[in-house]
Amino acid sequence: MQFFETTLSNGLRVIAESNPLAHSTAVCFYVETGARDETPEVSGVSHFLEHMVFKGTPKRTADDVNREFDEFGAYYNAATSDESTYYYAFILPEHLERTIELWSDILRPSLRDEDFETEKQVILEEIRMYADQPPFGADDYCKALFFRDHPLAGSVLGTESTIKQLTAEQMRDYFQHHYTPARTTLAVTGKVDFDELVTLANRYCADWTPGTLPSREATFQTATKFETLAQPSSHQQYLLQMSLAPGGQDSRRYAADIITNIMGNDSGSRLFWDLIDTGSAETVQMWLGEFLDCGTYNLYLSCSPEMLEENLSMIQRHLAQVDREGVSEEELELAKNRICSRMVLSSERPRGRIFSLVENWTLRSEYRTLRDELESYRQVSITEIADVLQAFPLSHPTTVTIGPLEKVEVA
Amino acid sequence: MQFFETTLSNGLRVIAESNPLAHSTAVCFYVETGARDETPEVSGVSHFLEHMVFKGTPKRTADDVNREFDEFGAYYNAATSDESTYYYAFILPEHLERTIELWSDILRPSLRDEDFETEKQVILEEIRMYADQPPFGADDYCKALFFRDHPLAGSVLGTESTIKQLTAEQMRDYFQHHYTPARTTLAVTGKVDFDELVTLANRYCADWTPGTLPSREATFQTATKFETLAQPSSHQQYLLQMSLAPGGQDSRRYAADIITNIMGNDSGSRLFWDLIDTGSAETVQMWLGEFLDCGTYNLYLSCSPEMLEENLSMIQRHLAQVDREGVSEEELELAKNRICSRMVLSSERPRGRIFSLVENWTLRSEYRTLRDELESYRQVSITEIADVLQAFPLSHPTTVTIGPLEKVEVA
Repeated sequence: MQFFETTLSNGLRVIAESNPLAHSTAVCFYVETGARDETPEVSGVSHFLEHMVFKGTPKRTADDVNREFDEFGAYYNAATSDESTYYYAFILPEHLERTIELWSDILRPSLRDEDFETEKQVILEEIRMYADQPPFGADDYCKALFFRDHPLAGSVLGTESTIKQLTAEQMRDYFQHHYTPARTTLAVTGKVDFDELVTLANRYCADWTPGTLPSREATFQTATKFETLAQPSSHQQYLLQMSLAPGGQDSRRYAADIITNIMGNDSGSRLFWDLIDTGSAETVQMWLGEFLDCGTYNLYLSCSPEMLEENLSMIQRHLAQVDREGVSEEELELAKNRICSRMVLSSERPRGRIFSLVENWTLRSEYRTLRDELESYRQVSITEIADVLQAFPLSHPTTVTIGPLEKVEVA
Repeated sequence: MQFFETTLSNGLRVIAESNPLAHSTAVCFYVETGARDETPEVSGVSHFLEHMVFKGTPKRTADDVNREFDEFGAYYNAATSDESTYYYAFILPEHLERTIELWSDILRPSLRDEDFETEKQVILEEIRMYADQPPFGADDYCKALFFRDHPLAGSVLGTESTIKQLTAEQMRDYFQHHYTPARTTLAVTGKVDFDELVTLANRYCADWTPGTLPSREATFQTATKFETLAQPSSHQQYLLQMSLAPGGQDSRRYAADIITNIMGNDSGSRLFWDLIDTGSAETVQMWLGEFLDCGTYNLYLSCSPEMLEENLSMIQRHLAQVDREGVSEEELELAKNRICSRMVLSSERPRGRIFSLVENWTLRSEYRTLRDELESYRQVSITEIADVLQAFPLSHPTTVTIGPLEKVEVA
C-alpha cells in the first residue's frame, strides 16, 4: 500500500492508496456539501441534485449514462449525507480512464428544466415512501429537535413543501457555489498508477471553474427533550435517542465508538443481552455519528408497544450505570476485537478502504492506514473511556418515540 | 490459488482453494439436503432445522453459541435452499480452529423438545411475514404449479399447517438421515493451510456417524399454466414466470445464463429498455435457477395494475422474438462483459469464491477456477445460444400474477 496526493491548479484534490496486488479499483468523487450546507428554503437540494447528476450533460443523455456504466460492468452509485455528496464506482483496473471521463462529464450536468420537473416527482415519491416506513420520519424529527438552530438540524431528503417549491434556478445556483473543485476530492484505492490518475484528472477535470471553500462553521447548543409522536397505523413502537459525542476531528472518537459498541452492538452488547436475548425488544442498536464539529451517540429501539416503558427504563438504567461506573477490562477487550476484526475483514477489497481514505483526508487532512486505525482502537484505555463518559455522558439524550402509543410515562 | 481435496474415513469431504495473499478465510459446512429432500408431511423441516442448529448442544447453550461467534468478530450465517443447507463464517485466518470447533459442535445439535416448541413460533412468524410481503407467496405457488409432482415443487419455508404439525421426533429423524458426513462438505477459501484444515476436520468431525448418500433422482414433467391470484390489499401487481432451462450439470447452462442476462438483466437488457426505461414497470428481471436435474428460467415483474396486460404482452412478444431470432453479436458481447466483470469483482475476497467452489464440487464433482468460469462464458457463441433456445424455449412459461386484479386477459 502506498499513499499519494496532489492538488490540481483549480483546487481539485487527487488522492490514492495504491495496492498493486488488488484485482479491482474503487473510484470516488467526493463533494464536501450536503444537507448542512443548505438554507432552510432549499432543504433537500443536495440530495435532489445527486439524482440530477445522472440526467445528462451537453454530451450525454440520461440513457447514455446508464448504457455506458453498464457496458463496462461497473458497480456504481451515489449518496448524500449531512456533510457530503459522493459518487463512486468499483471497476476493473483497465476501465479507469472511461470511469474518470464519465464521472467528470456527468458531474457537470445540464440541469435542464424539464428533467428537473420529472425528477421532482421521483423525489416526492421517495419522501412519501420514507414517511411510510418505520420509524416514519421520527429520525429526522429527533435530529431537528436535538440540533435546534444548528445546520445539522436539516433533513437530507428535505420536505414535500421545500421540494415542491424548489426551482431549477435555485438548484443551478446551489450547484455553482457548492460543486467547485476546491470542495471536491477524487479518491482512488486498489490497483492504480498515480501518475496516470493525475494525467486523467488533468485531462478531464482541469476545465472545472475554480471556486472558494466557504466556511462551514456554526455554533450550537443541543437540546434534551422527550416527545411522543402518535402513528396509530403502526404495529410496533419505535424509539430514537441522540446525545452529544466527540466530533470527527476529536481523537476521543475511538473511545466513543467503543462505548457505543459495548452498549449497543447488534450482538453481544449490554443492551443486546438485556433486551434482545430476553425477547423484550425486536431491535436495539447504538452507534456513533461523526460530523465536522461534533459527534452524536445514537440509539434505535423497536419493540411491541406494551413493552416500551419497561424497555425504556431498562435503557435509562444502563446509560446511567455506564456513565457512573464505566466499563470493564473484559468488555473493552471484547469490543476492540469485534471492531478490529470487522475493520480488517471489510478493508480487504479496495471498495472497503475508499470511504475511510477520503473521509480522513477531507475531514482530518490526514492519511491513515488500516494499521493506524486499528492501533488507535487498541490504545484506548479504561481511563480514557471514563474521561469520555464524563465529558460526553450518555444518560441525558433527546428522545423521540413513535407508534401506536399516545402517551409514554417516563420513569 | 491452489486447490486441495480429501475425504475423511467417515465420508466427510474437505476441500479448499488456498490463497496465501488473502487476509481472511471463508469457511462453509455445506449439507446436501433441502426442501427437495422432504416428504410433503414434513415440508419446511430443513429450514426449521437450520434454525435449531443454533439452539445449543450438549456442550453449549444457545447463548454460548452467540457469545462465541461474537468474541472473535466473525461474520456468520446460514441458509436453506431447495437442495442444500449451508453454514458459513468469514473470519480472520487465526480463528480457523475456533470456527471449525464451534461449527462442528453445533452441527450436532441437541434438538431439545422445549427449544423446538419455542422456535416453532419464530418459524410461524417468518411464514406469516413472508405472506405479508410482495409477491405474497406467489413465487412458491408458481414453483408448485410448474414442478407438479417433482420434489422441487415443495416450499423451503413449509406451510403453517406442516410446521404446526411437525414434531421434534420427526426433525430428529430427518437430521439423522440427512446430516450425515457423506452428505456434508467442509469448504474453505482464502488464507488456509490445508494440512492444518484436515487435522482440524479429523479432530472435530471424525466422530460423526457415517451414513449413506440417498438417491435424489426424480422424474418430472413440468406444466405450462396461467393463474391469477387476487390480493385486494396490494397496491401493485406482481407477476412470476418459470420455464425449463439447462440444469446444473449441463454445460449449456452458461449460454442459458447469458440469455437471461440479455433479456432481463436489471439494467441494459431488452426488458429493461422497453419496460423500465419507459416507466411502464417498476421492476423486471430474469435469472437462471440451477438444480441437480434441471434448470429454470425465472422472470419477475412488478408494475401498476393498469399496466399489467400491456407489460405482459410486451414480455410475450420479447420472449417469442428471442426464441425465433436469437440474439445479436453485440448483445452477446455486452452480456459477457457484464457477467465477467461482475464475477471478477465479486471473486476478489475469499467469501466471493466459497459458494462457487462448494457448488462446483458437490453438484459437478469438479474444481473450476475463476478463469475456467470466465472462459466458459467467453466461449459461448451465437449458434450455441440459438441451439439452447431451441431446446429450452422461453416463450411457454408457467405464469402466476397476484395483486388487485381479479382477472387478466392474456393476448
